[in-house]
Amino acid sequence: MTSKPAAAPDAIAALRALLGDRLSTGEAVRSHHGKDMSYHPAALPDAVAFAETTEDVAAIVRICAEHRLPVIPYGTGTSLEGHITAPRGGVSLDLSRMNRIVCINAADLDATVEAGVTRKALNDYIRDQGLFFPIDPGADASLGGMAATRASGTNAVRYGTMRENVLALTVVLPDGRVIRTARRARKSAAGYDLTRLFIGSEGTLGVITEVTLRLYGIPEAISSAVVHFPTLEAAVNTVITTIQSGIPIARIELLNALSMKAINAYSKLSYPEAPTLFLEFHGSKTGVEEQAKAVGEIARDYGGGDFAWATRPEDRSRLWQARHDAAYASVALRPGAVPLATDVCVPISRLAECILETEADCDAHGLLAPIVGHVGDGNFHVVLLFDPNDPAEIKRAHEVNNRMVSRALAMDGTCTGEHGIGLGKREFLVAELGEAVSVMRALKAAVDPLNIMNPGKIIAS
Amino acid sequence: MTSKPAAAPDAIAALRALLGDRLSTGEAVRSHHGKDMSYHPAALPDAVAFAETTEDVAAIVRICAEHRLPVIPYGTGTSLEGHITAPRGGVSLDLSRMNRIVCINAADLDATVEAGVTRKALNDYIRDQGLFFPIDPGADASLGGMAATRASGTNAVRYGTMRENVLALTVVLPDGRVIRTARRARKSAAGYDLTRLFIGSEGTLGVITEVTLRLYGIPEAISSAVVHFPTLEAAVNTVITTIQSGIPIARIELLNALSMKAINAYSKLSYPEAPTLFLEFHGSKTGVEEQAKAVGEIARDYGGGDFAWATRPEDRSRLWQARHDAAYASVALRPGAVPLATDVCVPISRLAECILETEADCDAHGLLAPIVGHVGDGNFHVVLLFDPNDPAEIKRAHEVNNRMVSRALAMDGTCTGEHGIGLGKREFLVAELGEAVSVMRALKAAVDPLNIMNPGKIIAS
Repeated sequence: MTSKPAAAPDAIAALRALLGDRLSTGEAVRSHHGKDMSYHPAALPDAVAFAETTEDVAAIVRICAEHRLPVIPYGTGTSLEGHITAPRGGVSLDLSRMNRIVCINAADLDATVEAGVTRKALNDYIRDQGLFFPIDPGADASLGGMAATRASGTNAVRYGTMRENVLALTVVLPDGRVIRTARRARKSAAGYDLTRLFIGSEGTLGVITEVTLRLYGIPEAISSAVVHFPTLEAAVNTVITTIQSGIPIARIELLNALSMKAINAYSKLSYPEAPTLFLEFHGSKTGVEEQAKAVGEIARDYGGGDFAWATRPEDRSRLWQARHDAAYASVALRPGAVPLATDVCVPISRLAECILETEADCDAHGLLAPIVGHVGDGNFHVVLLFDPNDPAEIKRAHEVNNRMVSRALAMDGTCTGEHGIGLGKREFLVAELGEAVSVMRALKAAVDPLNIMNPGKIIAS
Repeated sequence: MTSKPAAAPDAIAALRALLGDRLSTGEAVRSHHGKDMSYHPAALPDAVAFAETTEDVAAIVRICAEHRLPVIPYGTGTSLEGHITAPRGGVSLDLSRMNRIVCINAADLDATVEAGVTRKALNDYIRDQGLFFPIDPGADASLGGMAATRASGTNAVRYGTMRENVLALTVVLPDGRVIRTARRARKSAAGYDLTRLFIGSEGTLGVITEVTLRLYGIPEAISSAVVHFPTLEAAVNTVITTIQSGIPIARIELLNALSMKAINAYSKLSYPEAPTLFLEFHGSKTGVEEQAKAVGEIARDYGGGDFAWATRPEDRSRLWQARHDAAYASVALRPGAVPLATDVCVPISRLAECILETEADCDAHGLLAPIVGHVGDGNFHVVLLFDPNDPAEIKRAHEVNNRMVSRALAMDGTCTGEHGIGLGKREFLVAELGEAVSVMRALKAAVDPLNIMNPGKIIAS
């Protein structure tokens, strides 16, 4: 962890004049904002600015532009590729106080929220109206951050990712101008798709300050189930057949035997330590029954056991909390180890092969490798646990990840299904998309010619 | 219609050396390529180049870049806002010979096709494998053109638009470089969303030469129905309640009484000439029954009649052909008249108000106004029929359209749900998105600094 002296004292003074005690240069606050949830080392900003309105953000960005000071938007700090670190210093722009729900249009099934509203806060607010927002990356991330990283998670197989569920954004551009990227219409052919350009831009093109989201009616029936398999291959083949059959399953999550051991220990559960699918079905009562029956038959064909059902909300919550805690549970498998969270996504026909080869590679190189996956999308994570004081093991972990990405690319997959590029996957991005990255570079230069917006993320510069 | 002398003889000579008789400068071919299906006047290119491969396209674009000659990509010529006209001359780049199906990955539910493959050709090819591609704008457009204009149509309420159904594109950039925008993974967080940037870019950022699409299994059960209503408001309220109830209806199309009169005359049918919904349900057998029952109850609550069902494929085809012919049928209402096809889209809660006010405005100004709509998305079209020799009537038609767009924008809607901006809606785009259009301008300048790609479309230049 480096702690540099505050750069650009004029800029800091100007920001302090604007924000008063909403600007912090204290070590503790800067430390909190200079490190995300990944293995990437901390890199502290020179200051942290707490914005309360879009106008605040615009004023902060204008000062930073004037002084060529990097701006790093910060939501909840739950990124996984060093997105919110500040290796070049600058201002961490904390949006967590922008936590107002601007409006809920229940009749249009949409909501507009400030960027700092978290997904759980939104869902708590709209539940009584029979509505929900499905995108669930596990962490209680801010909706602005989820848009900025094109988040997805467990429900994406049915509802899509942030890409499909954002109708419009308010964005502060790198020169302080404020734009709205679209209207509330469900579809539009009005010019370039700026909404989608900013979704997944990881703070490198501007600061998202408001998000208009699609909402859904809470389904009439929701049932969750857990089912165990004799082999990982059997579990994955159940997923593949389910998806190929067009069954509109809401969640279908894989955990390998080691992940099950981890969550048993972490969450004090007693599941069999075997490859397991966590499932959820949404629909009408008969629709859910029909889907469950169809998936049950597929699972049985591959040697799966009986479904253990959870239908009461509190039972479903407990089941999914265990799944969501898998990341923490994995880390707890080896106290003191640091996790390298991998994130490839491949066409579903290659999924079994990709997972099995990756598991074998981890075994061959002596790495503990709990696997969890949003397998309905072809996306899975191996949590590679390494001893941060063992350079040889660090190297082995990165080599396994490199091979995993190469394997996914050779299968026409992607180096990142949902975590994003950040600092950690810039070379993989070039390996994946080649010359297309030069177009990204041109877009970045056009929108942010001073390169102040989260510089060095996505594209090396 | 203007027929300019061939510009840039050196460029034409270089293209002829490259393409031989696949370059045409004949009047008939140029005329065919200089006019789309809209009211926009013809504007002929200097030449028409017939590409057969991505390499052809790259070579053509390189020559045009060298000579600063406009390049206007051309699929089937079915655009509706002058997209494929050549008001500055240049080369119409005809992609219709790029009609190979590159590969079908049935197990992954995706297909890669050359840009000139039409949606019907793809569906004919994959039907035997139990697969279909749902996006259906009415015309048998090319899939490259549909991507370029972010097409949608009757199935979008269930399956989304081209935005949601394209996984990746091959694009020839304005300097002749070739990029692939993404891999075949279902989702990815790898950098800026270039796929979505090119979808809807209307040929202004590059030439789409290959499209990788999501496919779907043909549903186990498909049922179509027609239901008539005492008032337009009753029909629209049935739609609004259906959407708000979260019923996963596959198509829900509105025709007003005048449209029904038009299709009766054009397609020799005998439907009641009343506001009507055309519906389609996709799913399992019980799922379709359940959906149909729910919508039936909603329709009855609003005074709708009995559903007239079509379940056999040939009966469904006949029903939907009548709906798709509504555009031609509308034009036939008044021989010699020219149609101005409007295209607003509003949040569904405002749909009834928007349609009723627009219908009243047409009546008040003596314009025949058949209305058809993809109303499940809040999108509808009034076909404003005007006498091309009556300047006062032309003016009235444009004024009605202007008011209709203003009305939609005031409701937080868009000036174009699916037709795009082209030449006809550039001012509306500015009214809709304001400062955001300056970002589009910056993107255009970054990707196409010579402004050779379909210049003047989307953004005035």
